Amino acid sequence: MSDATRDIEALIELMARLPGLGPRSARRAVLHLIKKRGQVMAPLARAMAEVATSARECAACGNIGTADLCDICRDPKRATGEICVVEDVADLWAMERGQAFRGRYHVLGGTLSALDAVGPEELRIPRLIARTRDENVREVILALNATVDGQTTAHYIAEALEGTGVSVTSLAQGVPIGGELDYLDDGTIQAALRARKSVQ
Amino acid sequence: MSDATRDIEALIELMARLPGLGPRSARRAVLHLIKKRGQVMAPLARAMAEVATSARECAACGNIGTADLCDICRDPKRATGEICVVEDVADLWAMERGQAFRGRYHVLGGTLSALDAVGPEELRIPRLIARTRDENVREVILALNATVDGQTTAHYIAEALEGTGVSVTSLAQGVPIGGELDYLDDGTIQAALRARKSVQ
Repeated sequence: MSDATRDIEALIELMARLPGLGPRSARRAVLHLIKKRGQVMAPLARAMAEVATSARECAACGNIGTADLCDICRDPKRATGEICVVEDVADLWAMERGQAFRGRYHVLGGTLSALDAVGPEELRIPRLIARTRDENVREVILALNATVDGQTTAHYIAEALEGTGVSVTSLAQGVPIGGELDYLDDGTIQAALRARKSVQ
Repeated sequence: MSDATRDIEALIELMARLPGLGPRSARRAVLHLIKKRGQVMAPLARAMAEVATSARECAACGNIGTADLCDICRDPKRATGEICVVEDVADLWAMERGQAFRGRYHVLGGTLSALDAVGPEELRIPRLIARTRDENVREVILALNATVDGQTTAHYIAEALEGTGVSVTSLAQGVPIGGELDYLDDGTIQAALRARKSVQ
């Protein structure tokens, strides 16, 4: 195997480590890139190198940006009294796509997990408690995943903020928009029934 | 949206154009890369830039390498009398993984297609005919996909080489190793029955 093939093989191996790509699709992607090396591969390599050097975590909320504070924390138009707590930057992006929340975020970086020895210190939870004090926060909205670990983490944060005067809320659970009852799991139907609302 | 977010958005858009990745999985991949920007993202960007500048098509066979002639065409141990014709570099890689063929390749770069106006000139077919003459080729093995376009192309090449003394063969069709009859399509079962072999 020559240097050439080794370079290409090395690239395929690196690509295969990305979530959503396996060895086979990594090969396909690399071949596609090589065929379009001028229009796609070179710009992609540049964009990647760019982000690799500039990206960093926001010192306040844990979001990704290129400065010490992220775009959202620096934005004077975002309400400071509300913090939406999410597990991951991907969840923050999902919330932003929803365009319904105009406050600030706090990215935990995961969930509490006894099994994986993840405690509050690993999760920016102390930083969240400090922010509710320092930033005069009225409401903490827990937008954590509806999993066991997510809900454990939500309970822990709610307890930690008890008696501080900060109101703690969480996203509503129920039937998703466009959802068909027949395709929903039992847990969702139970939650939707328990949280039923008057339509009068 | 700040420059930072724009850079990340641009990267996601470029990644989403890769085969096998959509907008959602591109976002997930980019987040993963940003989290591991030291260990994964920077090396991946370097490997990609490296291959983008060095990769080129072999002047003889159309395989991908970094020199004018690819590793296989330069390898004195590969038999020169046999050429295996494949549609795409991915197919060449698949043949090489099989480790059964020790001759040289010819990558067509696609299949003949009246619909897409792909004629023999677009496909390195004239180059293949020239090679069979210049390289003293005894056998051309057609390893084209078992699709309509693949088989049309195979017929065209077989006709073009008629009377030149070059024997033209194609890969056997039949039941794949480990294949279960119950899961095979009708066409494969028909082909396997027609090409049945004596086991005595």
